[in-house]
Amino acid sequence: MEEPVPIAEIANLDLDVQEDDDIVDPWNVASKSDTGIDYEKLIKRFGCSKVDDELIARFEKVTGKPAHHLLKRGIFFSHRDMHSILNIVEAGKQFYLYTGRGPSSDSMHLGHLIPFLFTKWLQEVFDVPLVIQLTDDEKAFWKDMTVETSMKMAFDNAKDIVAVGFDLEKTFIFNDLTYIGQCPEFYRNMVRIQKCVTFNQVKGIFGFGDSDVIGKITFPSIQAAPAFSTSFPAIFNDKKLPVLIPCAIDQDPYFRMTRDVSARLKFPKPALLHSSFLPALQGAQTKMSASDVNASIFLNDTAKQIKNKINKHAFSGGQPTVEEHRLKGGNPDIDISYQYLKFFLEDDEKLADIRQRYISGEMLTGELKKAAIDCISPIITEYQERRAKVTDDVLKQYMTIRKLKFDYK
Amino acid sequence: MEEPVPIAEIANLDLDVQEDDDIVDPWNVASKSDTGIDYEKLIKRFGCSKVDDELIARFEKVTGKPAHHLLKRGIFFSHRDMHSILNIVEAGKQFYLYTGRGPSSDSMHLGHLIPFLFTKWLQEVFDVPLVIQLTDDEKAFWKDMTVETSMKMAFDNAKDIVAVGFDLEKTFIFNDLTYIGQCPEFYRNMVRIQKCVTFNQVKGIFGFGDSDVIGKITFPSIQAAPAFSTSFPAIFNDKKLPVLIPCAIDQDPYFRMTRDVSARLKFPKPALLHSSFLPALQGAQTKMSASDVNASIFLNDTAKQIKNKINKHAFSGGQPTVEEHRLKGGNPDIDISYQYLKFFLEDDEKLADIRQRYISGEMLTGELKKAAIDCISPIITEYQERRAKVTDDVLKQYMTIRKLKFDYK
Repeated sequence: MEEPVPIAEIANLDLDVQEDDDIVDPWNVASKSDTGIDYEKLIKRFGCSKVDDELIARFEKVTGKPAHHLLKRGIFFSHRDMHSILNIVEAGKQFYLYTGRGPSSDSMHLGHLIPFLFTKWLQEVFDVPLVIQLTDDEKAFWKDMTVETSMKMAFDNAKDIVAVGFDLEKTFIFNDLTYIGQCPEFYRNMVRIQKCVTFNQVKGIFGFGDSDVIGKITFPSIQAAPAFSTSFPAIFNDKKLPVLIPCAIDQDPYFRMTRDVSARLKFPKPALLHSSFLPALQGAQTKMSASDVNASIFLNDTAKQIKNKINKHAFSGGQPTVEEHRLKGGNPDIDISYQYLKFFLEDDEKLADIRQRYISGEMLTGELKKAAIDCISPIITEYQERRAKVTDDVLKQYMTIRKLKFDYK
Repeated sequence: MEEPVPIAEIANLDLDVQEDDDIVDPWNVASKSDTGIDYEKLIKRFGCSKVDDELIARFEKVTGKPAHHLLKRGIFFSHRDMHSILNIVEAGKQFYLYTGRGPSSDSMHLGHLIPFLFTKWLQEVFDVPLVIQLTDDEKAFWKDMTVETSMKMAFDNAKDIVAVGFDLEKTFIFNDLTYIGQCPEFYRNMVRIQKCVTFNQVKGIFGFGDSDVIGKITFPSIQAAPAFSTSFPAIFNDKKLPVLIPCAIDQDPYFRMTRDVSARLKFPKPALLHSSFLPALQGAQTKMSASDVNASIFLNDTAKQIKNKINKHAFSGGQPTVEEHRLKGGNPDIDISYQYLKFFLEDDEKLADIRQRYISGEMLTGELKKAAIDCISPIITEYQERRAKVTDDVLKQYMTIRKLKFDYK
């Protein structure tokens, strides 16, 4: 039987935030530093664990595959209970993947791609089912937007996600405004969660206030529900399976709450892998944002637009004159073109070579920008080719409630 | 398009309640007076309207039927916008009925029967569809009770409701923990409502506090949703129809909120007919309650139990001795047996005769109790005969999402 009394405390409330600290929550990401968010400090504040060499080595050992460059390069920099997931794999047991997205009106941008690219890799490496939530109800609560508009955006965004290349046989994509009304077990899990969390707790975790609408106040239960496998009876029957959630670090508050609730509901605590943010073109103080056209490279930008944006707007770590640059060299750690290469250039040697040549002054800013353009353009072109093939029919297949290719062990 | 900003004020907050006032809210009903709740005062506090002779006369004129005794005797004593419903009927337009119940573990008692008996009569007189909500999610939030137990109670209680005799072709019964997960349009209306109401507002209306679980805080949106006809696309398609809600007066706070939201969502304001409470056996200070066995006559009590309960526990308005009673007469207004006759004895002349004879002292308390037993016992016996016929299969028919017999005009 469920416990009747709400849990007394939620772990790791991120309450000891100092004035000069970076702002990282589901609605705001900002830093005062040129090198962007201090992720080491964030790990301490949030109480999560660093993705260290030991974890990466174990990852490679257990999976028998080389670690993804996003993992090796510290872009997926933090985790919760990732060792438990590797234990499960070693024991021949099963888990599933859960990630999601709050729909936005514009095309997805390059930054949105990161968790999905990495999730796709995780799905391939572990050969596990994946559920992807589109929180269109959230958008209706937070934005000046009707239910109908939110749903339309969810379907558009879902097509962008399908184009990443997820395995249809192992991937279920759903939007809340449809799926909650199609699956009583999902709503029942929402109720179980809503029974465990008080207003005081969501106030502490998310900063909600008395003048917030009641939809916002309950929304965290809806982002928590997919972390419980019984929310997907078509896929998992009534099995209680562990889950791994790859997501950007700003979503961690939802899952800190979920982890505390999971104990109450006698579910395994969800494990997490957190990514850092792809910086905006203008610099690492903010993340790439769909609402600022000049700060972002969109997945539907043309090759020419990409070239122009990087050449015009990508913040440079180089020196003011060629002479000075040759003499002093550039700083790749604040250079946005270099940062994008770090996110998207798979070849480790080539990246190290660029870094060394930029630091030495041998490589000029214009050349570094060209390297970034040459790396990103084909990625986006290929993505657009896949995106063009995602018809309504294809989307419908991913969003149909169904069994996935998944053997219960 | 929906307005983005939450409504600034909710009408009639019942905030000017005084220390000595009766307590009437969805969770507590209590009065310090022997004659029970002061319903006249409640009408003023809640800002609703009295069911007066003019309304009753109009009711009879429009329907061409004599008014129900529960209406004539002031048991359904208050309303909101009932004249609008009669206007709609006069204009040959349509509306529907909505009522509900928070499931409880015990059998329903005599008091629970009142709104359902009256709703059945309204359904017959107006020939309209009826939706009945079982708020099993509410019970999970408020009680030490699992989702599974709440649902089981909802199904048991639904059988009790079916036994009242509702027309299968015009009645849809649903429990939240199932129907919300079967009807995306219902959840979408929940979201639309949740977007219009702030924590401050539910705090003001329902007295919720910071330590309440988030399930309680959003629950009012779930009781509001059935007042919007688009929550039932199988019955009403996407038509926005007016609704009449017969309910006990303690449920009014939910519908004050709903009425304010309805304007925002461009729906007609729900009309209401409010009943007073069937008093407990011990006296009119409290209503009959399922949690007190000796205070209540249950729908599954035997004839012998009913006889014993009324004889032993029904508070008497008579005098201490026969001599004194013959001399001074009894007080029917505090006598519970007489009150029950007022609720259940349809024959106006017979009731007036009993009243007169009791006041005069001609009728003794024992005789009055016998009259109450003779009135109630056959009602319950007949009810039990119908209840015995409500199998799982019968219940399933009422709870299946389907078209009802209803012609769109």
